[in-house]
Amino acid sequence: MDDDSTANRIELHLRSLVRAASTGQRLPSTRSLVEQFSVSAITVQRAVQRLVQEGLVITRPGTGNFVAARRAMSRPDFSWQTTTLGPSRNNPSAISAAMTQTTPGIIPLHSGYPSEDLLPIALVRSALARASRGAAVTDRPAMEGLPELRAWFASEVAASPGSPGAAPSADDVIIVPGSQSALASIFRALAQPGDSIVMESPTYWGAIAAARQAGLVIVPIARGAGAPSADALDAALVTSGARLFYAQPNFANPTGAIWSRAESDAILGVIRSRDAFVIEDDWAHDFGIDEVARPLVAHDADGHVVYIRSLTKSLSSAVRVGAIIARGPALARIQVDRTVTDLYVSGTLQAAALEVMTSPGWRAHARRLQSALRERRDTLARAVVAELGAETLTALPRGGINLWLRFDDRVDVADLARRSLAAGVAIAPGTDWFPTEPPGAYARLNYSGPRPDRFGEAIHILAELLGR
Amino acid sequence: MDDDSTANRIELHLRSLVRAASTGQRLPSTRSLVEQFSVSAITVQRAVQRLVQEGLVITRPGTGNFVAARRAMSRPDFSWQTTTLGPSRNNPSAISAAMTQTTPGIIPLHSGYPSEDLLPIALVRSALARASRGAAVTDRPAMEGLPELRAWFASEVAASPGSPGAAPSADDVIIVPGSQSALASIFRALAQPGDSIVMESPTYWGAIAAARQAGLVIVPIARGAGAPSADALDAALVTSGARLFYAQPNFANPTGAIWSRAESDAILGVIRSRDAFVIEDDWAHDFGIDEVARPLVAHDADGHVVYIRSLTKSLSSAVRVGAIIARGPALARIQVDRTVTDLYVSGTLQAAALEVMTSPGWRAHARRLQSALRERRDTLARAVVAELGAETLTALPRGGINLWLRFDDRVDVADLARRSLAAGVAIAPGTDWFPTEPPGAYARLNYSGPRPDRFGEAIHILAELLGR
Repeated sequence: MDDDSTANRIELHLRSLVRAASTGQRLPSTRSLVEQFSVSAITVQRAVQRLVQEGLVITRPGTGNFVAARRAMSRPDFSWQTTTLGPSRNNPSAISAAMTQTTPGIIPLHSGYPSEDLLPIALVRSALARASRGAAVTDRPAMEGLPELRAWFASEVAASPGSPGAAPSADDVIIVPGSQSALASIFRALAQPGDSIVMESPTYWGAIAAARQAGLVIVPIARGAGAPSADALDAALVTSGARLFYAQPNFANPTGAIWSRAESDAILGVIRSRDAFVIEDDWAHDFGIDEVARPLVAHDADGHVVYIRSLTKSLSSAVRVGAIIARGPALARIQVDRTVTDLYVSGTLQAAALEVMTSPGWRAHARRLQSALRERRDTLARAVVAELGAETLTALPRGGINLWLRFDDRVDVADLARRSLAAGVAIAPGTDWFPTEPPGAYARLNYSGPRPDRFGEAIHILAELLGR
Repeated sequence: MDDDSTANRIELHLRSLVRAASTGQRLPSTRSLVEQFSVSAITVQRAVQRLVQEGLVITRPGTGNFVAARRAMSRPDFSWQTTTLGPSRNNPSAISAAMTQTTPGIIPLHSGYPSEDLLPIALVRSALARASRGAAVTDRPAMEGLPELRAWFASEVAASPGSPGAAPSADDVIIVPGSQSALASIFRALAQPGDSIVMESPTYWGAIAAARQAGLVIVPIARGAGAPSADALDAALVTSGARLFYAQPNFANPTGAIWSRAESDAILGVIRSRDAFVIEDDWAHDFGIDEVARPLVAHDADGHVVYIRSLTKSLSSAVRVGAIIARGPALARIQVDRTVTDLYVSGTLQAAALEVMTSPGWRAHARRLQSALRERRDTLARAVVAELGAETLTALPRGGINLWLRFDDRVDVADLARRSLAAGVAIAPGTDWFPTEPPGAYARLNYSGPRPDRFGEAIHILAELLGR
């Protein structure tokens, strides 16, 4: 037994020597290895023999052990996988261009994340440091998450104006490692492959990808400056048989549009009358500028709204923490899916997220963030209007981090994005946000990225490429 | 706009007062709120009116604002969800009793995790603290993971004895938040709902649950003290049409069994000849006692082995970090599924995991862990043999963290587990590890949990309950 583990160590030692050596080079003698590892010659030979069997070492009796000539490696053959794997359901192009990592020289208007200077990095660092000293490192968290963090997510909704009896409690909350995993679990848990799901169009590309991964058919309904029409939603639910409606009522990605209170009531009315769920993705909860996000879920007592909020974009990509709020059997189904998919979320990240969100520094940060977003939005919007024309800016969003541009229909946006990148500006073609054919030439520009001082330059480059 | 956000703040303030107050209690006057928030009376009234509309506050003109009588809240009605959700695919009982969190007084032999004193907690704390100061807090990691961590996982396999050309490179590695999410993604990416998958029986309950979640039919093949028969595997693949085989070649959960080199070769031969994949779950890589885990993937150049390793059990539940190694189109499919499911893993956790695994302290820890596991295993095994009889211990595992017990077939193990818990000892009924009917009365006992000094006492309680 001990011989065996020593032989293993000697083998690993020789293996590293062989890897670094050239063909024919002499390896340490059996005797020197016997001394070095304080073992018997038999143990050493056992280790050497393994490498001989693999063709890595040649033994010349009476002379020593040598590194074998490297055989010309044949390239591996993966062609059998083509037949075995069969047709592909997941399309690699499901991953949006918004996720592309660019080189430092590029002005990154394509990304979906705020830049470092808009994040509470000092708070995050100190919360992570404190969490690294705390109980969260040793105590495995419950599968549904830390009780205090669940209570915090519930209290955030309870603090928003809502209907009597609709305020969620900590028991209604499941902690997740970000909203993407929430979407994937909710779609799997509440629908079957082949079912339909209604979505606003345009909408978040990650929701489109997650619904397709779950085998769902996406039924799009148009969304302009406000909410989609409640009648259109009703018709889509009835015609398709869908019982799920995915939506971003506040500061939608990519348009920034919000549902008014009246529109929300009408939509909730349809959802209730059709015994359906609305999956409310409150992705930009912390990015209000002219308005505060008012979650729909605060108006729902009977479990029609399944709510998602993530802290990753607000805090740091290091803090992969978010929450699902749901009620009734739907909550139970989602919890089972989450557990089978992930078991639980790192307690250290949960503890750090809670500390940041409940610290006095967070409120100060949120105020600074609001002004900074306003200034950046206005700077980019002014440049767009000046250089590309007022008709290019679909709306001035009242929150969120994106401008949604519409070009002349003859513009090939994919080609524009390529040429723009070559000229130093990354933009995201709007195509990724449409579940079906885009009804125009759109692009999304993130005003929360780094280097707002170069926004003007970036839009000028776009204008030149567009021949303006 | 500013009025609006001040009204919001006042509203939140009043809302918290209402929540804490009793019916009829007087709220602060409009005048005092005007002073407190330095706003106009109109702004205050706007905030108050929202609460009045919700029926939370009553205004008596000239007298003040009062907390309204709480209406008897009707209980929410979730019954509509029963029809809407339809049949359930995920069974809540898919979550093993091994995940149950027990109270401190209980001796927890049921759990699947090592206790705190077997983890490198000091290393983990200092690595997390360092990571909280580093670039991983601000830099969003690539979707496939940090390059250095991917290289480390690849090097671990490359250091193991293997076949020429089979050593993976960093490009073959995808970082995941633990092995459960790896299993879920691999099953979804490499099979379609309705497909079959062959599994050893007994095997890890989480793999059974993840395969069922992916809509797969599990075809079990018996596994005893060594590997399952290569002929049985071949027959199962041919009969079912399965092209996936999920297995734990080293220190299997729950039996602790290992495949010999010859058995591995025979199984790999079958897998190759049937153009199939073996999903190698190297869950106990760091828990070798009498042997070192030797990954099968080190013998595979043509992408037949999809390899999973997680660091969560080795480091801490806070470090939800693991890896998938795969090659060819299978790697691409798994990567797309991972991205759509999760986007990426916290860079801070990745950086901390890498730091611990490459620190000199880790090697020292690994040596101490090996001795501690040996001592605990032997202590628990001796107690089992002495109190329950040698025939109860199916084998003395050469690694891993579990003993796999078989009782007389007339023992009702679920009932035994209940009575045992009431008597202060948690055990895991073996049922959870069988994809089909258990062929006997089994239980899994974890010897890596807390309080090894009470192992004797725990087994004595079991013996008494069994009437020995």
